[in-house]
Amino acid sequence: MKVVIVGSGNVATHLALAFLDADIEVSQVWSNNYGNALNLAIKVSAQAIESLNEVDNDADLLVIAIKDDAIAETLARLVHFKGAIVHTAGSVNLNVFGNKIKNYGVLYPLQTFSKDKTLDFRIIPLCVEANNYETLAFIKAVAIKLSDKVEEVDSERRKVLHLSAVFACNFTNHLYALAANLLAENDLKFDLIKPLIKETANKILTTTPKNAQTGPAVRNDEQTLKSHEAMLVKQPALLEIYKTLSNSIKKHN
Amino acid sequence: MKVVIVGSGNVATHLALAFLDADIEVSQVWSNNYGNALNLAIKVSAQAIESLNEVDNDADLLVIAIKDDAIAETLARLVHFKGAIVHTAGSVNLNVFGNKIKNYGVLYPLQTFSKDKTLDFRIIPLCVEANNYETLAFIKAVAIKLSDKVEEVDSERRKVLHLSAVFACNFTNHLYALAANLLAENDLKFDLIKPLIKETANKILTTTPKNAQTGPAVRNDEQTLKSHEAMLVKQPALLEIYKTLSNSIKKHN
Repeated sequence: MKVVIVGSGNVATHLALAFLDADIEVSQVWSNNYGNALNLAIKVSAQAIESLNEVDNDADLLVIAIKDDAIAETLARLVHFKGAIVHTAGSVNLNVFGNKIKNYGVLYPLQTFSKDKTLDFRIIPLCVEANNYETLAFIKAVAIKLSDKVEEVDSERRKVLHLSAVFACNFTNHLYALAANLLAENDLKFDLIKPLIKETANKILTTTPKNAQTGPAVRNDEQTLKSHEAMLVKQPALLEIYKTLSNSIKKHN
Repeated sequence: MKVVIVGSGNVATHLALAFLDADIEVSQVWSNNYGNALNLAIKVSAQAIESLNEVDNDADLLVIAIKDDAIAETLARLVHFKGAIVHTAGSVNLNVFGNKIKNYGVLYPLQTFSKDKTLDFRIIPLCVEANNYETLAFIKAVAIKLSDKVEEVDSERRKVLHLSAVFACNFTNHLYALAANLLAENDLKFDLIKPLIKETANKILTTTPKNAQTGPAVRNDEQTLKSHEAMLVKQPALLEIYKTLSNSIKKHN
């Protein structure tokens, strides 16, 4: 089996490495930026190609891992490809493939990827979808070689998964960043709250987030809420986040 | 050395157990609710007392781990106590002790506690403060027996630490809860995003949250942002959180 990777960002890189680990050949890498394609190609012993016209038509699978809004135009340049094509985006509907490609689907890895951080790909949920039974079976068979957690998820539910991931990961990380800023402004080390961040994430592995909720808002501790709000009076954007999230906690608990 | 615990909630329980682990005798436990005092007293082989008048004046340390707004009134009933008194609150100033108690301070464990979840207390940062040098030395000596991470932090900076903890822990946990709700509403399992939550917390142990930021807002992926907002149109409170945090990410990155 041969796989072509289109893209060279975090998802493309981690997927290419996962194929390598699973003894699946990555034959070619293409990227908008040829230098980036070359870097990734070297990592996985593949050929970097400068044009999508050079895509190997003998490849069985072409994986598109690029910015969401570039997927449609890239697909328009791949109508000649004979194998199956998948995209890897959480929020892009299956219908992005249009009617000029025969076998297509989605391979969405539900994880946050950093270029330089290795991950155990086998524990990453892979959400799969396809336009026909054979292609679905093929994508599933490939996915199972990469991960122990393969789930069939249609476009609508995949979009919900992605939205949930934005709340649980992207927004959460931003709250870490806001906390880091507050600490730095007061000569306090971010290291001090790392055990707390770790435990907060660990807790919900064994109980529901609702059960795990602590803090002044869930205790209705108005004195502390007021005192925190007073501290943020010169940072209106932070104050708005503080009030919005505290009110939401009160409403949900 | 003998310690009296005032309170029977999560912090009181974990601290009492940490004293036990450190071979420091917990001699008495008092709580608003005598039944709760009794439960905790049994766990740590202490005596449950019904009234603060029964507090053993031979004890060296009395630890107040109760709701923030009950601390002042409880202290008013402890002016006869001869040992050192500490509270454990993040946002309560040292001046809550007034001028009728001789030796006092703060022992603030920077962690989120659940009653039934055991924790390695030795990795929990303990922030200490006191009203005089001898008491500070005493509290520090006790703290070092409980944890490897003892930090001197004054009231103002402790308040900032607590506020940062609200962002990084309480708000973060609430975002997990909102994600769990979105998933449940669409028959998707919360388990699917647990690896993501774990990795999001793990990432910032080795890089800054700013470096770790991913998602549509930091990519300026307007198409996905608009599509997510459209999904939340019937949940205005969630939509507000989505917009507020996405804008904050854009502004900070």
